[in-house]
Amino acid sequence: MFVSRLCVRPAACARRAAYSTLVHPNLTSHLTPVTEQDISHFASFLPPAAIISTLPPAPSPPDELDQYNNDWIGRFRGQSTTVLKPKTTQEVSKILQWCNQRRIGVVPQGGNTGLVGGSVPVNNEVILSLSNLNKVRSFDPVSGILVADAGCILQSLTDYVAPHNHIMPIDLGAKGSCQIGGNVATNAGGLRLLRYGSLHGTVLGLEVVLPDGTILDQLTTLRKDNTGYDLKQLFIGAEGTLGVITGVSILTPPAPQASNNVILALPSFDNVLPLYQTVKRQLSEILSAFEFIDRTAYDLAVKHGQGRALSDEDVEGAECFVLVETSGGRREHDEEKLNDLLELLLTADKPLVNTGVLSQSPAQFSSLWALREGVTEAVSKEGKAYKYDISVPLSSFKDVVDNTREHLRSKGLLHDKAVKFVLGYGHVGDGNLHLNIVADSYLPEIENALEPYIYEVVSSHRGSISAEHGIGAMKTHALPYSKSEVSIQLMKKIKGIFDPNGIMNPGKVLE
Amino acid sequence: MFVSRLCVRPAACARRAAYSTLVHPNLTSHLTPVTEQDISHFASFLPPAAIISTLPPAPSPPDELDQYNNDWIGRFRGQSTTVLKPKTTQEVSKILQWCNQRRIGVVPQGGNTGLVGGSVPVNNEVILSLSNLNKVRSFDPVSGILVADAGCILQSLTDYVAPHNHIMPIDLGAKGSCQIGGNVATNAGGLRLLRYGSLHGTVLGLEVVLPDGTILDQLTTLRKDNTGYDLKQLFIGAEGTLGVITGVSILTPPAPQASNNVILALPSFDNVLPLYQTVKRQLSEILSAFEFIDRTAYDLAVKHGQGRALSDEDVEGAECFVLVETSGGRREHDEEKLNDLLELLLTADKPLVNTGVLSQSPAQFSSLWALREGVTEAVSKEGKAYKYDISVPLSSFKDVVDNTREHLRSKGLLHDKAVKFVLGYGHVGDGNLHLNIVADSYLPEIENALEPYIYEVVSSHRGSISAEHGIGAMKTHALPYSKSEVSIQLMKKIKGIFDPNGIMNPGKVLE
Repeated sequence: MFVSRLCVRPAACARRAAYSTLVHPNLTSHLTPVTEQDISHFASFLPPAAIISTLPPAPSPPDELDQYNNDWIGRFRGQSTTVLKPKTTQEVSKILQWCNQRRIGVVPQGGNTGLVGGSVPVNNEVILSLSNLNKVRSFDPVSGILVADAGCILQSLTDYVAPHNHIMPIDLGAKGSCQIGGNVATNAGGLRLLRYGSLHGTVLGLEVVLPDGTILDQLTTLRKDNTGYDLKQLFIGAEGTLGVITGVSILTPPAPQASNNVILALPSFDNVLPLYQTVKRQLSEILSAFEFIDRTAYDLAVKHGQGRALSDEDVEGAECFVLVETSGGRREHDEEKLNDLLELLLTADKPLVNTGVLSQSPAQFSSLWALREGVTEAVSKEGKAYKYDISVPLSSFKDVVDNTREHLRSKGLLHDKAVKFVLGYGHVGDGNLHLNIVADSYLPEIENALEPYIYEVVSSHRGSISAEHGIGAMKTHALPYSKSEVSIQLMKKIKGIFDPNGIMNPGKVLE
Repeated sequence: MFVSRLCVRPAACARRAAYSTLVHPNLTSHLTPVTEQDISHFASFLPPAAIISTLPPAPSPPDELDQYNNDWIGRFRGQSTTVLKPKTTQEVSKILQWCNQRRIGVVPQGGNTGLVGGSVPVNNEVILSLSNLNKVRSFDPVSGILVADAGCILQSLTDYVAPHNHIMPIDLGAKGSCQIGGNVATNAGGLRLLRYGSLHGTVLGLEVVLPDGTILDQLTTLRKDNTGYDLKQLFIGAEGTLGVITGVSILTPPAPQASNNVILALPSFDNVLPLYQTVKRQLSEILSAFEFIDRTAYDLAVKHGQGRALSDEDVEGAECFVLVETSGGRREHDEEKLNDLLELLLTADKPLVNTGVLSQSPAQFSSLWALREGVTEAVSKEGKAYKYDISVPLSSFKDVVDNTREHLRSKGLLHDKAVKFVLGYGHVGDGNLHLNIVADSYLPEIENALEPYIYEVVSSHRGSISAEHGIGAMKTHALPYSKSEVSIQLMKKIKGIFDPNGIMNPGKVLE
C-alpha cells in the first residue's frame, strides 16, 4: 500500500476525488451509465430495499451511497448512482445479464476492506453488493468442508465452525468486515498462510456468475477432482474482473488445541535464516508463525507502548527480532518443544540468538504478538508512512531495507524534515516483507525517489510488487514489474473470453 | 481406470491398437504428419541422439519407438514416427514453433506412467520426451523451495532434498519413473495429499513453452504473489494440452522425524465417519493418512498373504477396517498420542472400534501398510478387475459399493462365473474411493452393466469420475458426468487461446 496519497477525512479527499474523475472516465468510455429505465427493470425482480439509487423513481440521498462509493482508506472514490443488493445467485445472474446487454459496468463489492481500490467504482458503474448473500449452505464436520454464500463475513464463518473444533484457513485483521467471496476474489493472504497454505489450495469449489448471467457451478465439495482445467483457480485473485463469486466451498482445518509463542533477540540479521531453519526442524508441524521485526521497527513499537518489551539488557546488541508461534494438539508437548528449542539456541557454541522470552500466559502471548502487530500503529504515531507490501527472497530482506535507506540518503532525503526511518518487518515464512518509509510529511520528492525505485528493486529480485493486497485500481501501472508481457497478454485474452464487453470491474487488475 | 479393455502383452493388443487407428485419425485430421524435411529441420539444432525417428536420413528400427508409443498398461498405442529429446527449454521452444507453423501434433511425454492414455499419441504426432531436461536448477534449504527441470524423476528429487531434511509434497507408486513435469501436468494426487494438499497449493511457479514457441516464465520462488490471474494453475492438470511444462518451482515440506501406524477393526461402516472425526481431533497435526478398507477387500488381502492380519478374534464381527498413520516431529510424543487415542477408543461406552493394533517396529509398520496396499495385488490374483478411481462424499462410500453390488445382482451378474466380489477401499481423508469389481473374466455384459451406471452414480453425488488419474484419452467421453456444459465450453475457449491450431496433445482431455 502506498499511503502518501492517503487521506482519511472525506473533505480532504475532494482533490483526490476530482483527480479520479479526470482520469477514470477513459476506463469506462465503452460503457453506459445506469438510467431510470434500468432501475425500473431491476425493480421488476428485486425488492425496493435491494436497490439504493439516486435515480428516480425513489431517489436516495447521495450520501447513502458514500459507504459503497468510497474505499475504507479514503483514497478511492467512485461516482456510482446505484447499489444493488441481491439475495440469491439467480438475482445476481439477472442483474449481470441485463448489465451485459446494456453495457453497464459492474463492480462486485464484498466488505470493501481492500487496500488497492479494487472494490469501488472508477466512475459510475453499478455496485453489486454481496452483503445479502450471507447464508451458510452446508458444513460437514467430518471432512471440515464448508460451503457458504460469498457475502458471509469471515468472522461469522469462524464462529460458525468453532463449535465443531474447526477454524477458517485464513485470518485477517479485517475479519469482522471482510467477506469470504471478497477474500477469494482477492486471494487474501493473512496470518495463517504459513501453516495452511494459500486459497488456491484450500478453496475446493466456487459458484460464479459470469458477465452474461450464466451460472458456472463448480461448487464441489471434493478434495480430489482431476477432470480438466481447474477453472475456479482463475477467479481466485481475479478481483471480480472475470465474474461474480456467489458461493465458496472451502476446507477448514481442525482447530489447534494449544498456542504458544516466544520472542527472540538476534545479534545479526545474518542469523535469521539459519534460525528459521533450526526452528523449522525443531518445531516442524507445530510451527505456525515466524515473524521478523528489524531493530528500528522494534524500537518504535516499544517507544509507542506496543506490546511487552524485553529488558534493556536483553535487547542490547540486537540487530533484529523474531517472533515464533506454535499451534499444536497438546500444550505440554508444545511447551516442551519450545523449551528444548530455547535451550538448544542459548547453549550453542555460537548462539544464533542473544536471548529469548517464552510467553507464560494468554496475556503474555497477546503481549508478545502486540510487539509485532503494534509496529503499524507505532509507525502511524511517528509520522507519515510510505508502505510497500512486497515479496522478495528471504535472504534479501535486510538488503532491500538498507539499500532503500542508502538510496534516500544519496538523494539527501534522510533527515528530520524528510525521511526519519526506513524499517522492515513481515512474514519470513511467506517471504513477505513490509517495507515502511516513515517521513515527517508526505513530499513529492520522497515519492519520486521511492517509485519506481522500489518496484525496480522488487523486479530485480524476481519478487512481487503485491504479496497479498492485489492490484486493484492502484497498481495496474506497476503490473509489468512482476509479470512479463507474455503473461499480461494472456491475462487480457482470458479477460476477453469471460468478459468480452468489459463490464466487470473496469479499470482493475489490467490497464 | 477401467481395466476390462486392458491387455498387458503387446501381441494381444493388436486388436485394440487396430481399433485405435480406426478411431483416432479423426482426432488429428487437422494435423500434418512429420516428414523427412521436418527431421532435417530438427537436426539443424538438435544433436543426432536427440532424434529417434523411423524416417530418413537415419531411420531407427520401429521397435525403438515402442516404449514411447505404448503406455505402460498396454492399452494405448500410438503410431508416432518420431521422438524428440531436447535438453533445454530453448530447444523445446524451437520444436514447438516449428510444429505449430507446420501443424504437426505434439505429445509431451514425461515418465509415461499415466493410467488414462494421456502421454502417448492417438495417431502419428511427434513425441516430445522431457527425459533429458533433468537438472535441479536450485534448492533453498531455508525456504524449502526447489526449482527443477520438468524431466527430473520424482524419486531423484526426493533423494536430492532428503539430506536437507525435506521431502517432496507428493509421493506416488510410480515415483521411480514418473517425472515432476508429468506430475504437475496431470495434477497427480498420491499418498501425501491429506497432509500437504494438492499441487495447486504446493507448486509456486512454472516455466511453460506455449504451442507457438513462446516461453511463459512464471518460475517464481515466491510463496505470495498477488499480481493478476494465476495462469500457472491452468497448466496444473491440463495434461499437456495447453503447452509444455519445462520447469517447476515447488515448496518441499520439512521431513517428519517419526512415523507410526495403527490398524483398527470397526463393527460397522457407520462408525468410520465419527472415527475419522475423533482421530482428527486427537491426532490433529500429526495425522498423515486415514485409509479405509472394507471387509471384502481385507479378506482378499489376507487370503492372498498381503501384510499382517489381525487375529481371527480381532476381526470377528468387523465390517471394515481403517489404517491410521501419523508423521510428526517426535516419536515418543506421537506414540503417546496414538496410545491415548487407542485407550479412548477402546474404553468408550459405545466403542467405535472392536480392536486396534499399533505397529511396534519398522517391520510391523510396513506390514500394516501392506494390508492396505496389498489389496491391489490380491484383487489381481482373484480375477479380472474393473477399477474405478472416483471421488464421492465420504458418507456415501458404503452405499456406492453396496448399490453397485445390488445393481449387478439385479442384472443376474453376481455369481461365480460373472462378478465374484464388489469391494471398496481408499483415502477417506481425500474422499477418494477405489471401487473394484472382481469378475471371473471380462464380459461385455458386465461392462455394459457398469457403464454408464457408475458414472451416473458419481454424477448424482456431484462426485468426480477421475479423482486423481486425469482424463487423458480414456475418459474424454465421460467428462460431462463431472463437468457442466458451461465448464466444458469455457475449457474449449481457453484451449483456443493457448493452442489455436490444436497441435498440443490432440484427443486428450477435451473431445
